[in-house]
Amino acid sequence: MTKLSTVNLKDPVFNPQKHIVGERNNSKLNTNEINCFLESTPYDQEITHKLIDQITTDPILKCDSNYYEQEKLQERETTARKIKRLSLYMESDIKTMQKHYKDTDLIKSLQLDPTTKTLTNRDLNIFDKRLSLIAMMDPQLSTRVGVHLGLYGNCIKGNGTDQQIRYWLQERGAIFLKQTYGCFAMTELGHGSNVAALQTTATYDLTTDTFKINTPNLTATKWWIGGAAHSATHSVVYARLIVKGKDYGVKTFIVPLRDVSSFQLLPGIVIGDIGKKMGRDGIDNGWIQFKQVVIPREYMLSRFVKVIPSPEGKDVSVNIQPQLDQVSGYSALLSGRVNMVMDSFRFGSKFVTIATRYAVGRQQFVQVNDVEQNSKAKSANVPKVAKEETQLIDYSLHQYRVLPQLAIAYLVSPAAHRLMNTYYETLNELYQVSTPGSKNSDDTAFKTVSAKLKNLFISSASLKATNTWLISNLIDELRQCCGGHGYSQYNAFGKGYNDWVVQCTWEGDNNILSLTSAKSILKKFVDSATKGKFNEDLDSADFDYLDPEFIRKVYTHEIDATLDDDDLETYIEIWKVALVQFLVHIGKTIQRTKDFDQITKLLVTVSKFHAIHSMLKSFHEKLSDDDTSYVKDQASKDALWNVFKLFSVYFIDKYSGEYQQFKILKPSQISSLIQTKLNDLLKLVRKDCIALTDAFELPDSVLNSPIGYFDGDIYHNYFNTVTGNNPAEREEPGKPSYASVLTDMLGRGYEFDVRLAGSSNKATLEKLGK
Amino acid sequence: MTKLSTVNLKDPVFNPQKHIVGERNNSKLNTNEINCFLESTPYDQEITHKLIDQITTDPILKCDSNYYEQEKLQERETTARKIKRLSLYMESDIKTMQKHYKDTDLIKSLQLDPTTKTLTNRDLNIFDKRLSLIAMMDPQLSTRVGVHLGLYGNCIKGNGTDQQIRYWLQERGAIFLKQTYGCFAMTELGHGSNVAALQTTATYDLTTDTFKINTPNLTATKWWIGGAAHSATHSVVYARLIVKGKDYGVKTFIVPLRDVSSFQLLPGIVIGDIGKKMGRDGIDNGWIQFKQVVIPREYMLSRFVKVIPSPEGKDVSVNIQPQLDQVSGYSALLSGRVNMVMDSFRFGSKFVTIATRYAVGRQQFVQVNDVEQNSKAKSANVPKVAKEETQLIDYSLHQYRVLPQLAIAYLVSPAAHRLMNTYYETLNELYQVSTPGSKNSDDTAFKTVSAKLKNLFISSASLKATNTWLISNLIDELRQCCGGHGYSQYNAFGKGYNDWVVQCTWEGDNNILSLTSAKSILKKFVDSATKGKFNEDLDSADFDYLDPEFIRKVYTHEIDATLDDDDLETYIEIWKVALVQFLVHIGKTIQRTKDFDQITKLLVTVSKFHAIHSMLKSFHEKLSDDDTSYVKDQASKDALWNVFKLFSVYFIDKYSGEYQQFKILKPSQISSLIQTKLNDLLKLVRKDCIALTDAFELPDSVLNSPIGYFDGDIYHNYFNTVTGNNPAEREEPGKPSYASVLTDMLGRGYEFDVRLAGSSNKATLEKLGK
Repeated sequence: MTKLSTVNLKDPVFNPQKHIVGERNNSKLNTNEINCFLESTPYDQEITHKLIDQITTDPILKCDSNYYEQEKLQERETTARKIKRLSLYMESDIKTMQKHYKDTDLIKSLQLDPTTKTLTNRDLNIFDKRLSLIAMMDPQLSTRVGVHLGLYGNCIKGNGTDQQIRYWLQERGAIFLKQTYGCFAMTELGHGSNVAALQTTATYDLTTDTFKINTPNLTATKWWIGGAAHSATHSVVYARLIVKGKDYGVKTFIVPLRDVSSFQLLPGIVIGDIGKKMGRDGIDNGWIQFKQVVIPREYMLSRFVKVIPSPEGKDVSVNIQPQLDQVSGYSALLSGRVNMVMDSFRFGSKFVTIATRYAVGRQQFVQVNDVEQNSKAKSANVPKVAKEETQLIDYSLHQYRVLPQLAIAYLVSPAAHRLMNTYYETLNELYQVSTPGSKNSDDTAFKTVSAKLKNLFISSASLKATNTWLISNLIDELRQCCGGHGYSQYNAFGKGYNDWVVQCTWEGDNNILSLTSAKSILKKFVDSATKGKFNEDLDSADFDYLDPEFIRKVYTHEIDATLDDDDLETYIEIWKVALVQFLVHIGKTIQRTKDFDQITKLLVTVSKFHAIHSMLKSFHEKLSDDDTSYVKDQASKDALWNVFKLFSVYFIDKYSGEYQQFKILKPSQISSLIQTKLNDLLKLVRKDCIALTDAFELPDSVLNSPIGYFDGDIYHNYFNTVTGNNPAEREEPGKPSYASVLTDMLGRGYEFDVRLAGSSNKATLEKLGK
Repeated sequence: MTKLSTVNLKDPVFNPQKHIVGERNNSKLNTNEINCFLESTPYDQEITHKLIDQITTDPILKCDSNYYEQEKLQERETTARKIKRLSLYMESDIKTMQKHYKDTDLIKSLQLDPTTKTLTNRDLNIFDKRLSLIAMMDPQLSTRVGVHLGLYGNCIKGNGTDQQIRYWLQERGAIFLKQTYGCFAMTELGHGSNVAALQTTATYDLTTDTFKINTPNLTATKWWIGGAAHSATHSVVYARLIVKGKDYGVKTFIVPLRDVSSFQLLPGIVIGDIGKKMGRDGIDNGWIQFKQVVIPREYMLSRFVKVIPSPEGKDVSVNIQPQLDQVSGYSALLSGRVNMVMDSFRFGSKFVTIATRYAVGRQQFVQVNDVEQNSKAKSANVPKVAKEETQLIDYSLHQYRVLPQLAIAYLVSPAAHRLMNTYYETLNELYQVSTPGSKNSDDTAFKTVSAKLKNLFISSASLKATNTWLISNLIDELRQCCGGHGYSQYNAFGKGYNDWVVQCTWEGDNNILSLTSAKSILKKFVDSATKGKFNEDLDSADFDYLDPEFIRKVYTHEIDATLDDDDLETYIEIWKVALVQFLVHIGKTIQRTKDFDQITKLLVTVSKFHAIHSMLKSFHEKLSDDDTSYVKDQASKDALWNVFKLFSVYFIDKYSGEYQQFKILKPSQISSLIQTKLNDLLKLVRKDCIALTDAFELPDSVLNSPIGYFDGDIYHNYFNTVTGNNPAEREEPGKPSYASVLTDMLGRGYEFDVRLAGSSNKATLEKLGK
């Protein structure tokens, strides 16, 4: 891009490159090792970079600054074109996973030949990662595909029989983004979080051996259904199973919506567009009403629930697998939650990179560190000597605003990767256990996998809620850190925020998820503290603070909260102590008040504490072990430990109310220990902040924010983006197409009332008054 | 609007009207009296409602739900049309203020006849109120006009001589939205908050007795200038005054930009469009570069600074009024800040009305208030008995999320009105004092008005920053309280948030403003505590906690923090104690560390405490006095006192970290006193919440959010808005215009590689391999 000739690069006041590139060159950190730490393993690191390279250069998939200029219909269409493009990548990604590049018949045989393998989550690994990375750049694209593959697909995987999974996903092509396109009709206009109370019905008709899917009233309208407005041919529908007048609760059904070739709506299907949203307008969210739509009995997903007509067809029975039916209903949402924790890392790293570079490159005011001088300098509206102004990042307030956000992005990563692994393992186990005839499918195995699933629900709920909130706040705070320039759409924060915040609401409202997970934690706590119940095998990872022995020690003050730099586990342990004291307080409060509802506000905070604890723990575990951290360089390791400490101390300070209220820390410790450490750590992390953001290795094309580009040439990049997207009017620069509206107004005459036929002027009024 | 026939109004689960209308009918509060309290006086109340009635029904000014569907250029054009419409209201509003309805020559004579009066702020009172009310409904419209009247106009009023004010505003028509349209070119690409370091130059040329306005480099480009891209004919430009090589700092100049009739840019003026923003795209923000633009010396605004050529024109001198020059430079921003506090009240009341009604009408889950039962109900994925679900507002967590926001909207109002009055009084005094030959213009008068201005700067900065932050958070929190429906653009939160948050950045970045005000408070504190300096007359209103005697008593614990329901002033006094203890802590920290920068984080909180204190105080003063509260009804008065207490207690709990750290409250008091009171108050305010939101008296057309309309028919209103804005495709419903993109993808064949000319199939590869 052209650089304006009027710029004097020797200007002593502004030269952001000098600072950004300078700090980069002076850094001794090994950003490649740190990047490997963040990406989990060298294998993941490599694949991440290859995929980012592909998606940011593909002529259809890539996003430029005109990405921010699109209106709703354009976004919808562009996103559809990108999905079409992705369908080709899907085939090639499956081939890669199958190591089957040669020969043309792989997809065909996977789809049509029943003897070929049934694809597993592992086979979609590369494509899933591709989608997850795309989310950083174009989140609406990931979601629009994610609704089909993630929600529709996972609902079938979680609730369908093996044959149903094979048929709907493979034979009917869904997994290849082909022939069928699915949506996920769970939420209704009147019910979101309370899935068990959904009102849509699926009534079994014995005479025809079919179900009638029906929307009984307005509030039962399926609402917010991604893909429904424009693209879905099929839907999984959550509806009440009614057999012989009995209501068996909400189950899942496949309901076709559109003729696959003509794209006409099928009879009885009423669909509309949800219209404008706060963000993600590229997703065609819609609403659906079913008017007595008939589907075959066999379209019910029947892994855990079966409707079985008697051989003569005269009667019918319902068979439900009680232990797994309940969890499986929600399992489709699990994948989304797990992915949102990963998204939190990606989004966090993106906005932290932008704001940190800006904070290093931007200079404003000359820092004066003395009260008297300061107020003098302030009030003296006189010219400053041409002294170089201070970099924003050198103000401690700015450090406090930016650097803990950097720490958050870092601390999400190991937790997100660990959660993702646990998710795949547990789901795999559930699939094994629930496969008919599997040797593992005994009652103990059922119980174990069910307990694991419950833990996964707790952790994913707490991590999803806490991190999506943290990232909302991160984007908002960092936008403000970029001043007015953060408000420009071209610098990514505006659309980024609007696209992001729905994550706090969908696939489990954050408050509900926090409450649910904290209630389970409270139950575990009561079991442990009063009955000594604690499952070493299952609970020691995420719930180690609930070990009865640990609880006892905290309660008797054998363990005290402290922060010891020679024993970094103390930065985790303080949170364990806090959790226990918090739970003790809640227990006592319930005992005293007998009012469960009153403590719900506290429970939300318990869930946040749980997430903070588990993020610290995952990070600590990974970095402590050279085999898993991949960080050999000592300076880099030290820098990462500083980030770890900053995260812990920042949140202790944030929650100093609770820390003091539950007597974990004394008031004097907040001032002398916590806030002093916080200041010291900010100074330490500040030194490494360019390297630590470079280590995310996000190319400019992902950032799509000129004030955050790698070269640090903030003002040129930004100016060129603005002028490139807003060329002057070709014929009369500076004169808008609607100029006549303005010239009419400005050029109007002196007498408004003349236009009232002159009937209000002096002479007329005199006549009229006589 | 049509109601769907499928709706069963007897449905036991959903009937939001029943609750909303029921609670309204059962309320004993006098909403009219409460509304009068909120609107300040019966006079203001009446005028507010008349103006709201006009702006929400005027066919050009009103906003419907399609307001949310506009793209950038449409928004720009619609906003311009509305301004044109407003210019007619302006004339009629001035006539009303002048009680001059008859006769057609008022505007003409005000403009052309030098013997007519110079219009004052009072004459624009109705129009200002009109604009302020429009901000609730269409904030970009208010701002686009506000840049012209508020920033351009006030800059001239604050810095121009009497003749200059008369000429530019009245004779040149600006005040009538006629002939000239102004913009305010202060901010540059490289400098925002640091106004004193702006780089644009205005160099005096003795030979021609003119200034050359010049943009020396890229970062000196005027940036974010509202009105510059499309509409401004003139600009006030902040530029460094250079006379005989000496830099006198930043002063203000009138620079014409466009030929008024042809709308062509004048020579040397380079202007571009800033393009897409996070919100408020109806404002045509632009950038400006000046290429040696010549203006007459007389175009410099010269109330406090004069460039005086010697009689023979051989030399030149510069004359600066030192005391007032500094403050006046910023005075144009004061009006904006004061207005943003009023906006905070208006925006807050709007979103609180929506979310409260939704919370009362929406039902979800059946509340179970016992730990064991609760977890059973949760895990039992079995059908519920058709029992009525619980209203959201009856969950204490939801009360905690919504009702303190209601209290915030209430508490802003008296503070906003008081600040507005102080602003007008002080500016008027400044104008008097600085009028040449005025009998008041002695040195003492200068000093007094300068001190008053300083206090006004502190209070307006602290209230602006604190409240714009509170309202950002309020909109965000309340959006989340409305679940997914809050994310629909039609429910006002999305655009509302995007439009709002810029208030945290513009016309004084919130962090900078907080720091500036807190630094001044700290200085006052040091003066009072160490030198006993306290100006009873000036400081007792907003800074009563700085009275030396009070400081002493807090320091010696003669005063202790407590909350006594028989003495409601204790709810204010606890904040006074907190402020003193906080300032003592800061003082000690500075003494210990000698590092001023380290305490900046604390200073931001001091500014927030100051604002909270002054909001409580204004509210208390107004409500305690029957003559000013206009609330006679005891039940209504009690309800208002509950709101007052809730506000105080909510923030004590929020800042419990500080309250404990500075030993204002003990940990046990947080649990037993504060949190218990908080719960009790939430329950009390919950009972009145419909009446308290009705009392804002905002018509549906201002809310523009179907889930918050007065009749409480949430689901119909919302469904009809969505379907009305998104009619089905006319010919093939449910089939989007770009359907072929999707059908191409879904219908594609089995062999992707066939498209590679078949060169990868088995037979070919065998041949090639041989």
